[in-house]
Amino acid sequence: MRENPDELSIIKEFIEVIGQPKQIYSKIGDDVAHIPSGKGRVVVKCDMLVGETDVPQGMTYREAARKALASVVSDFAAKGVKPNAALVSLGIPPTLTIADIRELALGVRDAREEFKFEFLGGDTNQAKDLIIDCILLGYAKHIIGRAGAKVGDIVAVTGDFGYTGAGLYALSKYGRVAEGFAEKAISTVLKPKPPLELGLMLAERRLMSSSIDSSDGLALSLYTLSEASNVKIVVFDLPAPEGLREFAEENGLSLEELVFYSGEEYEIVFTAHEDKLDKIKRLAESLGKPIKAIGRVEQGKPVVEYVTLGKKKILERRGWIHLSAKRNKNKV
Amino acid sequence: MRENPDELSIIKEFIEVIGQPKQIYSKIGDDVAHIPSGKGRVVVKCDMLVGETDVPQGMTYREAARKALASVVSDFAAKGVKPNAALVSLGIPPTLTIADIRELALGVRDAREEFKFEFLGGDTNQAKDLIIDCILLGYAKHIIGRAGAKVGDIVAVTGDFGYTGAGLYALSKYGRVAEGFAEKAISTVLKPKPPLELGLMLAERRLMSSSIDSSDGLALSLYTLSEASNVKIVVFDLPAPEGLREFAEENGLSLEELVFYSGEEYEIVFTAHEDKLDKIKRLAESLGKPIKAIGRVEQGKPVVEYVTLGKKKILERRGWIHLSAKRNKNKV
Repeated sequence: MRENPDELSIIKEFIEVIGQPKQIYSKIGDDVAHIPSGKGRVVVKCDMLVGETDVPQGMTYREAARKALASVVSDFAAKGVKPNAALVSLGIPPTLTIADIRELALGVRDAREEFKFEFLGGDTNQAKDLIIDCILLGYAKHIIGRAGAKVGDIVAVTGDFGYTGAGLYALSKYGRVAEGFAEKAISTVLKPKPPLELGLMLAERRLMSSSIDSSDGLALSLYTLSEASNVKIVVFDLPAPEGLREFAEENGLSLEELVFYSGEEYEIVFTAHEDKLDKIKRLAESLGKPIKAIGRVEQGKPVVEYVTLGKKKILERRGWIHLSAKRNKNKV
Repeated sequence: MRENPDELSIIKEFIEVIGQPKQIYSKIGDDVAHIPSGKGRVVVKCDMLVGETDVPQGMTYREAARKALASVVSDFAAKGVKPNAALVSLGIPPTLTIADIRELALGVRDAREEFKFEFLGGDTNQAKDLIIDCILLGYAKHIIGRAGAKVGDIVAVTGDFGYTGAGLYALSKYGRVAEGFAEKAISTVLKPKPPLELGLMLAERRLMSSSIDSSDGLALSLYTLSEASNVKIVVFDLPAPEGLREFAEENGLSLEELVFYSGEEYEIVFTAHEDKLDKIKRLAESLGKPIKAIGRVEQGKPVVEYVTLGKKKILERRGWIHLSAKRNKNKV
């Protein structure tokens, strides 16, 4: 028999699975949520996950809920801000059972435990799509901008690019059961790990001159930094993981397309003064999250160039744009 | 020719219509939004409007967007907290044109001007339903709870109840063109006006002992106060507007059903020490928003009783519960 969860049973399920936050926070179910006073500006970000477009086949509800929150954590990581508390607005299709709701709650709990914020509740509604709108809050004395890249700076990333495009391809081709490179690629799609600790440390030590999270893809992230800072960015090293070239060749995919245009890697793309590179590398390695220097900031009008086989070419300025007919996500 | 708005054109439209917030706030389009530091706790509330269930036929996109925000303002009003800034996560069905997007932006602008918060942007997605998830932020040194109702307190409301149920009925029967009572009732559905100024003044002067916004209906709001405060509430006066009884009789509807179970009135339901009633009444009248004393807090297990024709009866404990088969909204 299918149980039919209503708003009250959904809230009950969430409280059962996740528990109430610490006493200095508002309780789940209060009229309004509140967090204790802190120092600096209040930072807030909302990001909506929509079932149809953002949840690939093979992803569980638990993974979807965790990922919805991880994608907002990624913005906080890139800006060097600690997320303090989360709210979630849910749109629940009538087909979801109470067991599915429990999976969603478990995903929220996973994210809360991993990224150490308090979960304060949110809102529950009926909708045609699964909607998970995540809101994170934090305090910050300083927020790293996009406009601080200086000529001579190093351009770096906190992880590999291309896994997500490959992972989506592998997921649709093989399902969740895969081995070797495909398995790793699929896990980055299902369980992205934004480098929150690294972002906080780099920000605290003021080691980045500009930063952005890479969820719209590497190319567009670089373009955004380049345009905001009014500088040219030249990429001289492709941050492709081991095995990506082989995977691309085996499956008739383009390596560059996978690296520059997959999107949803949830890594930090940043610039830093070249004198700081050593310190950044040591810090990153101490956290088990080695960074890669992939390019340099140069004088010139805002554009992103890529040097390959000794030749410079201008990267196409495109990425993941919602509602766009030109979208390319999932289509590597 | 139908224009096909993508994420960038939607953001552009919003910035064109609404403009950027004051310089001390983050700009629309930044990685994360932020508000200046303030005093006290940070108060936050998210509330999702879903096209299919929350937008009655006859309501424009502009009205829907304004109402989505007004419903969150209502929570802030009831808790006596000034909303400082808003974010909006949008789910946009593919059928919406750029003209529809402009209407949504105008609705957000209407709410911003009326309730005087800054609009900081949000998120844009494709979805099957129209989704407007509104997030409001503010600071508060004191937040009025639900648990403070004391035996002997007066129970009061900031406006009439029943208009919304009557308005939805009239809207489905006559469309937007109606006269007299029906016209007024329809306008409360399309353009609810949460008493923000009154809520702030009552809170600042600590005149309420407990409060809640009435969006789930008068009966359920009273039950929530009664249960949180562990007291009995006895209603001795129906806060029905002039003309409601006649409208109910003409249309074969129940007056009590309309008053207690319509929902979405966005008024404040509160309790106050009886010595404060005069002061509250004078304040409310000075703002052109007269309050009504409708009952009293009594000793006893949590329940809501209604005294009519000299007889006490226990009010049914029900209201608007999302995803519930027992829902009664729109069905008076």
